[in-house]
Parts: sequence; structure tokens; C-alpha cells
Amino acid sequence: MTKRAVVLSSGGIDSTTAMAMAKSKGNEIYSLSFRYGQRHSTEIECAKKVARALGVKAHRIIDIDLRQFAGSALTADISVPKHDRADQLATDEIPITYVPARNTIFLSYAMAWAEILKAPAIYIGVTAVDYSGYPDCRPEFIKAFQTMANLATKTGVTRETLLKIETPLIHLSKGQIIKTGHDLGVDYSLTISCYDPEQDRSCGQCDSCLHRIKGFKEAGIPDPTPYIPIKA
Amino acid sequence: MTKRAVVLSSGGIDSTTAMAMAKSKGNEIYSLSFRYGQRHSTEIECAKKVARALGVKAHRIIDIDLRQFAGSALTADISVPKHDRADQLATDEIPITYVPARNTIFLSYAMAWAEILKAPAIYIGVTAVDYSGYPDCRPEFIKAFQTMANLATKTGVTRETLLKIETPLIHLSKGQIIKTGHDLGVDYSLTISCYDPEQDRSCGQCDSCLHRIKGFKEAGIPDPTPYIPIKA
Repeated sequence: MTKRAVVLSSGGIDSTTAMAMAKSKGNEIYSLSFRYGQRHSTEIECAKKVARALGVKAHRIIDIDLRQFAGSALTADISVPKHDRADQLATDEIPITYVPARNTIFLSYAMAWAEILKAPAIYIGVTAVDYSGYPDCRPEFIKAFQTMANLATKTGVTRETLLKIETPLIHLSKGQIIKTGHDLGVDYSLTISCYDPEQDRSCGQCDSCLHRIKGFKEAGIPDPTPYIPIKA
Repeated sequence: MTKRAVVLSSGGIDSTTAMAMAKSKGNEIYSLSFRYGQRHSTEIECAKKVARALGVKAHRIIDIDLRQFAGSALTADISVPKHDRADQLATDEIPITYVPARNTIFLSYAMAWAEILKAPAIYIGVTAVDYSGYPDCRPEFIKAFQTMANLATKTGVTRETLLKIETPLIHLSKGQIIKTGHDLGVDYSLTISCYDPEQDRSCGQCDSCLHRIKGFKEAGIPDPTPYIPIKA
């Protein structure tokens, strides 16, 4: 039987690269995306394009409304911080764009689907290098989630197959991630990173855009992203 | 400052008793219920009545659609098993009414809200006695979730307040739960247990009804539940 893997997909560089890596290991891919009160639907559209491009077996999009609890720039009506240059990136603080419990909720849904599919793996594109200060991107969080997941499910009780949370990007820099995906044939023009895009163009100034720009530079690969020109 | 507690509320005996216990300890209660593709909305109505009766500060109802992943009697279109007598209750198998990852998903949302409220506790009415064989009701699951939760959140990173998952019913039998709630003034006529009710009447034959009937008998307290008469 083909190995199955549930892959969390945001339509960004990291999750798309993680998906390509899962596929390159012979997994049948089940991709999972979330509408969680983002201010833009562009990333869902990118996730759909990525799913088609990578030939996934199924792609599910789940609606979750984190706005009910309020409290973050990505879901509430407060401004995303902008910078002029990459060296202004915050590195040690938890940013305002942090969404409480987001990865925990995403992984919980993935766990439900993995159990039904009898998929022994969930792929998530978190990285502890160049990461944006989110507590739920740290390796110790992922490890604790995996332990919990194997106690939460039938699978865990019967010990037929233990569920593994795969984080193939965990020790890669953005540049290394892009290089890896590029070598696997990923078309990054299908992906988006921007927290605040206008139509199909990225702002080029939010934390996520700055990481992307820096990443392509480090990888030595041309950045296919259309950016909004910066006003003087 | 008043202590805050997020309480998972299904409108049933267990979560209602857990809520009464949280309140009796001086907590300000934030109750959280889920519409998850149940075949009946009765339990949401009961959760609302319970929230009013116990004077909660806020009650949120979250829509989650586990039907997208299929696979359980409570969310899909397959029959709930019925029994004639309490001694036919399954005790060692995982029942068909098990919903994959349900408690994990519920607790993940509770964790998001707790973080925003800076609430140091989440109450969940799971019990390891008289429990229905669900893996995600076991103490070891709860402990693992708590560990994960404190790594997932800002709170956990800054160590301001650690989040505790409170399970005040974990070692109580159904009879003891009912006795405890009764002593705290809980009106169990507001609650429902049935997996398959018709209007406001319970079937009296599903696992959950049988546990309820047995519980009131053990507690020596009259059962206020309207049951559908069993056909000869």
C-alpha cells in the first residue's frame, strides 16, 4: 500500500517545499488548508494551485473562525507591521501577527484526518531557523504534540501505527528551503508569503515578504514574486 | 483579579458538573461549545440553558465540520448502536460513536481562548471511570495535552502563568458526578446525554442514556430525564 501523508498547506514557500519533500519520499499527499479569518483569500488560491501542481490525492479546506476570540493582526482589524529593510526584522520577540493556538488547531484537524486515512505522517513546514518567533514553531512544541497525538487516537491506543509529525524544514534557513524546493522542481511563482497583499502583488515590506526576499537572495535563485513598488 | 476559567460545555451531565465545580472554586466562567455536525442541536440548546443557569461571563459556540473527514456515528450517516439493558454496555472497545481527535480539537480552541483571556485553567469533564472507551478521555492524554499547550503558547514561553487542564471528574463514577453536582445545586433537567434524541426526549437505549440512567440510580437521586417509552 502506498504511504499516505497529510500535509498542512498555506500556499507559502515553507508548506509547499515540505509537500514536495513528502512527495519525493513516495507519499500519497492529502493536503489540508484553513480559512481562519485571514484578511485575504490569496493564500487559499495559492494552496489550490500548489495542490494541483503537485498532484495531491485530495485537498480539503477547513473553515475555522479564530476571530471569535480576537487578538491578532492576522485575524483582527489592526495593522500588520511594515519595515523598510530586512535588517529591521524582529528576531527575539513574539510578533503581533502571532495567532494563538494556530498550529495546535491546524495539527489537531490534520490528526483527525490522518487517523481516518490511516496515514502515519503529518507534514508541517515549520522552521526553527529564520522563524518569526512563534512559540508553536519550536521543535519542543512539535515533539510534545506528537506525544499527545499518539495518546489521543485509536491508532495510539492500538499501537498499529504511531503517528509522526514530520518537520523536514526544521533546521533549514529560508535560503536552504528555497534551494531544496527548487531542486525538487517547485514553481514558487504559485506561492505567496505576504501578510498584506493587494490582488496578486506582495507588499515587499512585511516580515514574511522580507524573509522571502532574503531567502531567494541567499539561495541565489531569481525571486518570481510580483511586489508592489515601494513608495518614496 | 478574579480567576478566569474556560469550560468546555456539551450540555451534558459531565461538563455541566465540571462547570459547577469550577464556579464553586470562585472562577469566572467562559463556556465553550461546538457544533460539529451532530445530528441534533439539542445539546447546544442545553449548553445555552446551562450557561444562563450558571451565570457564565461569556459563552461561545464554534462551528467545526468534522464531517469533512467522515468516519463516526456521531457525525456521519450511520446508526448509533442501541441496547436493551445497561449490562450490555461495551467497556473495553472503542465505540463507533468515537469522533477522531474531538477532544484535541475542542481543547485546542479552548487553549486559544484561554490565552487571550489570560485564563490559567481549562475545565473538561472527562472521566476515566464509567468512560466510554474514548482514547482522548484518558488521564495520560490530558497530561500530554497540557505539556503541549504550555509549549504552544506565548504564556508557556514567557512562563507568566502556566495553563492547567482541570479534570475534576476524572476519578468519579457517573453516580458520584451526579451526587457532586446535585450538592452544588445543578439542575440536571437542563442537560442531555442522549446520542439520538427525538425532540426533547431521550432514547433511553444508547450507551450515553444507559450511563445516565445507571448514574442517577447509583446517586439515589430521581432522574428528571424524559425518555421515549421502549417499544415492546
